[in-house]
Amino acid sequence: MANSEFEYVRKFEEWDALAPSNWIVVRIDGRGFSKFSKRQNFAKPNDRRAIDLMNAAAIEVVKQFTDIVIAYGQSDEYSFVLHEDCQLFERRAAKLATSISTAFSVEYCMQWDAYFPGQVLDRPYPTFDGRCVLYPKKRILRDYLSWRQADCHVNNLYNTTFWNMVKGNPATHTSPMTPTDAELALKGTFSADKNEILFKRFNINYNAEDEIWKKGSVVYRKFEDKQTDTTAAQQFIKPTDDQARKKPQSRTQMEKEKKRKQKARVVVEHVDIIKDKFWLENPWILD
Amino acid sequence: MANSEFEYVRKFEEWDALAPSNWIVVRIDGRGFSKFSKRQNFAKPNDRRAIDLMNAAAIEVVKQFTDIVIAYGQSDEYSFVLHEDCQLFERRAAKLATSISTAFSVEYCMQWDAYFPGQVLDRPYPTFDGRCVLYPKKRILRDYLSWRQADCHVNNLYNTTFWNMVKGNPATHTSPMTPTDAELALKGTFSADKNEILFKRFNINYNAEDEIWKKGSVVYRKFEDKQTDTTAAQQFIKPTDDQARKKPQSRTQMEKEKKRKQKARVVVEHVDIIKDKFWLENPWILD
Amino acid sequence: MANSEFEYVRKFEEWDALAPSNWIVVRIDGRGFSKFSKRQNFAKPNDRRAIDLMNAAAIEVVKQFTDIVIAYGQSDEYSFVLHEDCQLFERRAAKLATSISTAFSVEYCMQWDAYFPGQVLDRPYPTFDGRCVLYPKKRILRDYLSWRQADCHVNNLYNTTFWNMVKGNPATHTSPMTPTDAELALKGTFSADKNEILFKRFNINYNAEDEIWKKGSVVYRKFEDKQTDTTAAQQFIKPTDDQARKKPQSRTQMEKEKKRKQKARVVVEHVDIIKDKFWLENPWILD
Amino acid sequence: MANSEFEYVRKFEEWDALAPSNWIVVRIDGRGFSKFSKRQNFAKPNDRRAIDLMNAAAIEVVKQFTDIVIAYGQSDEYSFVLHEDCQLFERRAAKLATSISTAFSVEYCMQWDAYFPGQVLDRPYPTFDGRCVLYPKKRILRDYLSWRQADCHVNNLYNTTFWNMVKGNPATHTSPMTPTDAELALKGTFSADKNEILFKRFNINYNAEDEIWKKGSVVYRKFEDKQTDTTAAQQFIKPTDDQARKKPQSRTQMEKEKKRKQKARVVVEHVDIIKDKFWLENPWILD
Repeated sequence: MANSEFEYVRKFEEWDALAPSNWIVVRIDGRGFSKFSKRQNFAKPNDRRAIDLMNAAAIEVVKQFTDIVIAYGQSDEYSFVLHEDCQLFERRAAKLATSISTAFSVEYCMQWDAYFPGQVLDRPYPTFDGRCVLYPKKRILRDYLSWRQADCHVNNLYNTTFWNMVKGNPATHTSPMTPTDAELALKGTFSADKNEILFKRFNINYNAEDEIWKKGSVVYRKFEDKQTDTTAAQQFIKPTDDQARKKPQSRTQMEKEKKRKQKARVVVEHVDIIKDKFWLENPWILD
Repeated sequence: MANSEFEYVRKFEEWDALAPSNWIVVRIDGRGFSKFSKRQNFAKPNDRRAIDLMNAAAIEVVKQFTDIVIAYGQSDEYSFVLHEDCQLFERRAAKLATSISTAFSVEYCMQWDAYFPGQVLDRPYPTFDGRCVLYPKKRILRDYLSWRQADCHVNNLYNTTFWNMVKGNPATHTSPMTPTDAELALKGTFSADKNEILFKRFNINYNAEDEIWKKGSVVYRKFEDKQTDTTAAQQFIKPTDDQARKKPQSRTQMEKEKKRKQKARVVVEHVDIIKDKFWLENPWILD
Repeated sequence: MANSEFEYVRKFEEWDALAPSNWIVVRIDGRGFSKFSKRQNFAKPNDRRAIDLMNAAAIEVVKQFTDIVIAYGQSDEYSFVLHEDCQLFERRAAKLATSISTAFSVEYCMQWDAYFPGQVLDRPYPTFDGRCVLYPKKRILRDYLSWRQADCHVNNLYNTTFWNMVKGNPATHTSPMTPTDAELALKGTFSADKNEILFKRFNINYNAEDEIWKKGSVVYRKFEDKQTDTTAAQQFIKPTDDQARKKPQSRTQMEKEKKRKQKARVVVEHVDIIKDKFWLENPWILD
Repeated sequence: MANSEFEYVRKFEEWDALAPSNWIVVRIDGRGFSKFSKRQNFAKPNDRRAIDLMNAAAIEVVKQFTDIVIAYGQSDEYSFVLHEDCQLFERRAAKLATSISTAFSVEYCMQWDAYFPGQVLDRPYPTFDGRCVLYPKKRILRDYLSWRQADCHVNNLYNTTFWNMVKGNPATHTSPMTPTDAELALKGTFSADKNEILFKRFNINYNAEDEIWKKGSVVYRKFEDKQTDTTAAQQFIKPTDDQARKKPQSRTQMEKEKKRKQKARVVVEHVDIIKDKFWLENPWILD
């Protein structure tokens, strides 16, 4: 019984390497999470334990995959950004998407007990599907991240208003509404309207809400060694276009770089990544 | 802060639906499993607990995804076969590959304690990457499965011989060899040679080895209700090509079918799937 | 000035080989042909010279590409079918699509004078764009061809009725209609209605119309040597599925086969390819 | 006979739109041109009529497709560059590749008589296959064009030396060599070596050779209206990256722009496009 006779079936495998010189975003989403969050009684509009667990999983993924330069998460989704020159797994799409989504899913389940102590995690276990999207320019990648963060804000304002309406507020004689009624009442409203409803009926100043809900979570490496500051600064001072035809790093350099990254502290922050400030302060992230 | 200004980035997402009327195989492979199996002291050449865990995870995946018609596993890999007419996730490749590989990875980690009691599962946690491959004909799909099973046999014969040589056998005055020497000694040998080495030096009749090592594991649904026998039989009696332009099932039919599948017993067997016998006895699997 | 510094740009070329064991259809369509046919005063509903030119071009394409097993044309479109095992240009999609569409376009222009003598062919010259579509089974390929031929019939019945209404018929006191009125009048009508309009108002028995308009054009190789009859017959008698794992032909066999094809007569017929008759009489075409 | 029953076959057509915000190069190559050029007795190393015909065809293609911003040709190949924001044919790959390669092939054949008067163009007619390649950044697109032009130079130096060696030169008592001998003699030589061979044995100063052979041909629109100068200048003065999130043009603007392009003079020049000079003088080309 030789397997040579059947080996022709390998020709059916397609080579799925992603186009070079494009930023790769692997976005993962909780599969069936509206059902799952109900089953597990996640607090509404936001459950701090659930988001902390998401972030804890994301931190481990960023630590494990040193090619990830930054990650952004909100609700049950996370976007992991790989550098445009990343060569991990020869840029094969399926390999990248499944490696990152399995690592995240496993972390989420294995860390569950730490964030939901005593709360049984039963089948179907939570998992996160994923996909790769390519962005050909740094500017478009930043627009992608801005899109996700703006989406976080829009959804959070809506959800905060919606769930307060559903819960009601005796202090202002605001009776609870059914979900359907609340939905109807919010149809066509603008941000200003929702801000006013929150303030008048629920005594909530939306701007004072926790940043974690309004901005989502940004995960990245914080370098504290001198070298980086200098390197980054240098790179930032003269990002000439001609220098752009980069020499590939030597193997030793790559190993050294990988180790530096592994040693770096991975942080979670809830900051604005739409405006330039964050990127000017951390120029090496997309360098 | 509206997100409409950034929404154009959605246009960068590619639609990755797999071609219709093709069998879909999602094959998953343990990531970094040679390192992992050493770290966890898996027995050589085969570790029963490890394979039982693989099979336990596969069973849950088959139960969860009723579109999977059969699965075949060996070593640290598993192939899940989706019917050529499967419409799950609109046949989107990334969604299929990540959903199945995350479900499997999570099951593997969550069931670890049951198969390796008292043995700590630490980071990096085991995960399985995956990819979709299309097979346009039933015959080629069967060749794919035959390829994996022939591969199982070839590898197992090699590994059994290799590890026995490395361990040595005092009874026949066969001294242990270094892995390098064993590898060299086996270079260019045929099956017959390995069978003879096993028999003469280690008193092992390879044909009498457990089927689980020689054949790998086949996971599928066993229907015991009358209806299936009849339906399957009918379908098998006249598989005319003209009947092939199938009417799509109605929603009710599909739900009913799904429930039947969910009720069916999922079994693991270590049988030959290269010859026709298995397929003649279970005609509905690829119907 | 060396070119090595720039060679990295080759990595941006994607490998676009089509999946093996799928029938390849290269369908070409006249670009901007409604404008072109007006400019060149094509007769309505059908212009015999235009269709003869289409067919003459198709014949040369079939002669040149011996991998084409059959072609079907109607109006300003042609579908060229390549065998599922075809290895031409390593099955690269762009190469196949552009080679066939350029060959057809050039033939159309170069033969123009023979079919439209004295009628100047000016810019923009007529061209035909093309694309590859894969069909995984013979039955689905036949459905594709049936689709095109059914489309031919549906369009021709409509166009014949429409243009007669626009022209009017003094014999039955049917005044000419504007195109808009004719379109409106035909909206929602069935085949039977159009047949009746043609018969009553224009004294046309649609069934007696030329087959070339009702059936379109089928181009294929007619083998007259004994060998083929025998070979074909043999293949047809026992098309067992197990024999399907075909041995690849030797180089000599392939060359011989190619020469036989080059010698074969390429014919154009206006016959039904929806029913089985044609395929039973010409079993080797899709073998 | 309805066609609805067969319409499902349309689902097998894949949507092949190219990723947004990438420069598109459609490169065409003469199919079987080494045979064709022998059959038609093209002069060696270069045939002026053949290159003039290539350029004449390219000019018509650039005129016809106003989305082409620049084209570069040498030998029997041409690269047509479409702007990164080009929306022609919804960026569908097959449509773009076949439209441009058919237009070029037809122009080549139809203009043949003008460049090869009295020389019969017989079957197989010359055609050009084509493919799309994406370049995500302007800098990489320029490297692509540099690659082709450097390739032109390298090939021309080689061919000039090779063919002179094959022809021999009585003046310097250099006897003709067989092609095989010339090939062997040139193996491993550097540019300097070839320059010296040409100078010493054939009295040829390579640097004084016609630019058309050393540089190939650059085809682009020359705008002479004031508006462009101003617009282009403005765009060039402040190409800030923030301005980059371009507003899509209105339909009227697009039509106006198209007309301006159609009126512009299309020129062929044999200039260096590797250094910055050309691009600084014609900043609007890639703007």
